[in-house]
Amino acid sequence: MPLFQRLCLLPVLLMLLALPAMGKTAPDGPEVALRTLANGLQVVAIPDHRAPVVTHMVWYKAGSADEPRGKSGIAHFLEHLMFKGTKKVPAGEFSRKVAEIGGQENAFTSYDFTAYYQKVSPDALEMVMGYEADRMENLVLAEDVIETEKKVILEERRERVDSSPGAILDEAADAALFVNHPYGTPVIGWQHEMLALTRDDAIAFYDRFYSPNNAVLVVAGDVDPKTVFALAEKIYGGVTRRVAEIDHQRAAEPEPAVSRSLEYFDERVTTPSFERTYLVPSYMSAEPGEAEALDLLSAVLGGSSSARLYRKLVTGNEKAISAGAWYQGTARNLGKFGFYGRPRGDTALDEIEAAIDAEIADIIENGVTQEELDRQRNALVKSVIFERDSQTTLAQLYGTMLALDGTIEDIADWPERLGRVTVDDVRDVARKYLKKPRSVTTYLRPAS
Amino acid sequence: MPLFQRLCLLPVLLMLLALPAMGKTAPDGPEVALRTLANGLQVVAIPDHRAPVVTHMVWYKAGSADEPRGKSGIAHFLEHLMFKGTKKVPAGEFSRKVAEIGGQENAFTSYDFTAYYQKVSPDALEMVMGYEADRMENLVLAEDVIETEKKVILEERRERVDSSPGAILDEAADAALFVNHPYGTPVIGWQHEMLALTRDDAIAFYDRFYSPNNAVLVVAGDVDPKTVFALAEKIYGGVTRRVAEIDHQRAAEPEPAVSRSLEYFDERVTTPSFERTYLVPSYMSAEPGEAEALDLLSAVLGGSSSARLYRKLVTGNEKAISAGAWYQGTARNLGKFGFYGRPRGDTALDEIEAAIDAEIADIIENGVTQEELDRQRNALVKSVIFERDSQTTLAQLYGTMLALDGTIEDIADWPERLGRVTVDDVRDVARKYLKKPRSVTTYLRPAS
Repeated sequence: MPLFQRLCLLPVLLMLLALPAMGKTAPDGPEVALRTLANGLQVVAIPDHRAPVVTHMVWYKAGSADEPRGKSGIAHFLEHLMFKGTKKVPAGEFSRKVAEIGGQENAFTSYDFTAYYQKVSPDALEMVMGYEADRMENLVLAEDVIETEKKVILEERRERVDSSPGAILDEAADAALFVNHPYGTPVIGWQHEMLALTRDDAIAFYDRFYSPNNAVLVVAGDVDPKTVFALAEKIYGGVTRRVAEIDHQRAAEPEPAVSRSLEYFDERVTTPSFERTYLVPSYMSAEPGEAEALDLLSAVLGGSSSARLYRKLVTGNEKAISAGAWYQGTARNLGKFGFYGRPRGDTALDEIEAAIDAEIADIIENGVTQEELDRQRNALVKSVIFERDSQTTLAQLYGTMLALDGTIEDIADWPERLGRVTVDDVRDVARKYLKKPRSVTTYLRPAS
Repeated sequence: MPLFQRLCLLPVLLMLLALPAMGKTAPDGPEVALRTLANGLQVVAIPDHRAPVVTHMVWYKAGSADEPRGKSGIAHFLEHLMFKGTKKVPAGEFSRKVAEIGGQENAFTSYDFTAYYQKVSPDALEMVMGYEADRMENLVLAEDVIETEKKVILEERRERVDSSPGAILDEAADAALFVNHPYGTPVIGWQHEMLALTRDDAIAFYDRFYSPNNAVLVVAGDVDPKTVFALAEKIYGGVTRRVAEIDHQRAAEPEPAVSRSLEYFDERVTTPSFERTYLVPSYMSAEPGEAEALDLLSAVLGGSSSARLYRKLVTGNEKAISAGAWYQGTARNLGKFGFYGRPRGDTALDEIEAAIDAEIADIIENGVTQEELDRQRNALVKSVIFERDSQTTLAQLYGTMLALDGTIEDIADWPERLGRVTVDDVRDVARKYLKKPRSVTTYLRPAS
């Protein structure tokens, strides 16, 4: 079944950005190869011979941020509809074939991209390629499928957003943070707009974005690059380039001038929760070095149990059951820098906020020490050693980067760039971006 | 010079909606006549023989809410560019002719419409009609005019928004209230988008919306309707209908779930200020009777010095130097219901908010009395008697209503509909709409 994923996917990927560091320092890192077919399809081969399995992913550089205004949810709706058959293949056949051979499949939609993947044995690679290449250009949508599948996405929204107080508040927070850019619109869509989506909307989105020159094919696993490129040429090479130029122009944010806060009471809430999110650049839009500094700033402040906020609020004065910071920089246009904290016992939410504010003020004033910067940088690398074990996450890392129009070199260089970040760089991005008017604060509280 | 006006124009017009009440009860009210020309232009004639003067207005049913995403400010920019000449008339000639005969002219842009008007002696009516009809279809835009005039609108934004702490906060509040509908985008435009506007953008907006079947001609003054219609037919009748169907489809708001608040500190602020705005229906989108009830609710709560908030906070406990409520219901899609208060001396803003909250809670709980409802309804009518003296505001009233696709009957019926509002109706709209999750609260404070 297609799986809807919001940006929650991306913090994981960020961690993985450090993977090539391992490739560089450890000679057993993957030797990633890239080719571009004549029709514009980028093909990435990532050898991984530890087990007889391959991960096959196709990434389209089109997500919810590419939707026409008023058509929110169409990117994700189309992801569902991609399982409904083509001119040659009846609905369900592709999924059934994958299941029959014990394979796995999935799909997800985010703001900037939509991806489809299968995990199968190497001898089934050609088969899944065939099906995937076929639905890249031959999708057929019957009217009855539209209404049936619309019920599915509406139910998905009810489950993932409306039944979760935190998700309701997060959705409102994103809408408050991004007042002009489409990142303020939920990937799943606004309910009233989802209800009005049509077959024509889906076809229009498909025709506009599902073209080989707007896609990235990633094959990771027990297959050599030469075979990957030969198969890709044979099977995807014949897919027609349907769109000449892909337009990712999106409305930009005005410079934020006024701090916003949101308060939400819900009887389903048991523990109150504080969050603060600042508008910051992403890896794709930042000045050189700034995104790397933001990553390390988040590590120092709150990426782990050895970070400042955790040591202060969770294990220190025990005011909080959780507290931390994060940077979400894997996006085509804009990033987010966030803080969170949940009070322990009868500690007031205000106290958590004040403590987090004090830590922010301290870093802005005094910066970070060389020792903690090195320690957190090192910890980030270590955590990545663990993550690299997954073939799927490896494929996701490269797919994400190329889907954002980044390069393999961006991944390869990243550890080096991370290594160049100084304590001054970290303090400077804190000064530049952790300004209250750039932020949205949320308070999630039990209904009294 | 073109004048930029935000919705601040509209509360005045709302008051004027009561004008026809006078027409009905007083036999000297205007006998308004409407014709539609073959090309779709609606023509309204409003006789007013008190002085030898006519007000000539053309309203286009196109405002900032009709702009393409990412092109904010183009409606207003085009308004400026409409003074730059046509195929037949050099730039400035129209304005010069009006000035030469001692006439006045102006123009304004709002969310839903853009209007141009001249006030001249009756014998100059045909002349201004000729110029106005000419620029409805023959606008010429030279590239050099674009850059020069762009400096003007950017300066206008600096003056009207960026140099005013209250305007900066209001702009952010609108963006927070309307997360999906284009009413969240400022009429003047976001600065970064204004900078990127082009001649092509202006022409595209002009070609899409400046067509006689998307316009309303209003002539008020010392001229009989027969003459108005004859002149309109002669001069505007030949303007080509350039657009078959006008599309006012706009993204709608999701049901608001989370209350928002904004805090802005500025050293230019001397007295702090509290505002709360609720998302409510407009006259055009409300259930029957609800908009009228919202109008009376605002009158009871805070439309004048005899209203509850003023008597409580300003003349009562003297905590505030101003306090009131308002309803902005003159809009194609959505309305706003607002509260405001500015503390006296060292009264805290929180105290003002708490007092206003208490009044809201009281009306939701206990409603209003028949006596105060009748008194405020009567006061509304009386205030209108004063306003009706202006020919220009009369013309604006009819132009606004028709530009929103309302009818002359909507204006004529309004006092009757207002008269039918009961105390229960007023309490019911308060209960239905004055819910905190529907609102945005702003705090404007001096920088410490």
